[in-house]
Amino acid sequence: MSHDDERSPNFEKRVPEGDNRLRLVCEDCGFIHYDNPRIVVGAVAEYEGSLLLGRRAIPPRLGFWNVPAGFLEIGESPEEGARREVLEETGAQIEILDLLGVYSVDRIGQVHLIYRASLDSPRLEAGPESQEVGLFRPDEIPFDELAFSTNVWALRHYEQSRGRRPLAPFTAPADPEGW
Amino acid sequence: MSHDDERSPNFEKRVPEGDNRLRLVCEDCGFIHYDNPRIVVGAVAEYEGSLLLGRRAIPPRLGFWNVPAGFLEIGESPEEGARREVLEETGAQIEILDLLGVYSVDRIGQVHLIYRASLDSPRLEAGPESQEVGLFRPDEIPFDELAFSTNVWALRHYEQSRGRRPLAPFTAPADPEGW
Repeated sequence: MSHDDERSPNFEKRVPEGDNRLRLVCEDCGFIHYDNPRIVVGAVAEYEGSLLLGRRAIPPRLGFWNVPAGFLEIGESPEEGARREVLEETGAQIEILDLLGVYSVDRIGQVHLIYRASLDSPRLEAGPESQEVGLFRPDEIPFDELAFSTNVWALRHYEQSRGRRPLAPFTAPADPEGW
Repeated sequence: MSHDDERSPNFEKRVPEGDNRLRLVCEDCGFIHYDNPRIVVGAVAEYEGSLLLGRRAIPPRLGFWNVPAGFLEIGESPEEGARREVLEETGAQIEILDLLGVYSVDRIGQVHLIYRASLDSPRLEAGPESQEVGLFRPDEIPFDELAFSTNVWALRHYEQSRGRRPLAPFTAPADPEGW
């Protein structure tokens, strides 16, 4: 949520009528800001045994490698959002196969829905949010240069569950930083 | 999103700097309203073969039966949110077992994460958002009086997948209204 426009909403925390939680309410315009968790959608996409990653051209974690993912938008399903994000960041068309993980990142109010997917072609093109994109064999994945813990979880879970179907999606590990 | 306070934000649709989509921006206070899809969490909870439903005491669909569910809040995982919603609406303590469904309701910008769960005790108590609560044997479920399509999907999917593990979560059916 960006509140740092040139003007600034005059938010106060109070419980709106009929609610039971503190919300940010703009005392100037009356807007109630229901700051619900946001959904991040993305995919671990495979082409002939190699996995698709993009190097971030934007903060946070600029320059680090990333499982392509981004915020779900109104009007699209999670699968559509994951396909869009992968296309925007890497130029790749994917086919969604299974839901790999539902990763809650409580402290920043995000729930990540990360899919298993396949790539039809190795033709890639870095989008404006990527410095470069690439396909990595399992032993080449730059685990020390991944952008986020959720990337590590998704890639490890992908490897753990290769070929397993039906797949019950993984969740965030109990020791999220110990990976 | 409630915009109908006594005062009213002066929203205009425009593309904020650095963005590529139309967003609602309040021309008075500068607030950018990222209207992302919201997450609804809930559970189909079973006690000795019967399933837990609540009759809604609030709009929309007041008086109709509902799989207990509600909006995920910041700071809780989907599983925690599902447990909280079931407790608030029905007084029941549940144990989450599996993710039953990831139902996208694109047209209203919601993604429902509905779990399979078990109830330890049949002791129930209707919360302020429920007129009554009850446990229903499969042949007693009031399918004609369910509040939302997602309830129908979740209950049918629950029956279809009874005892199946691992469970790959279901998604919204291709013919969402034909159930």
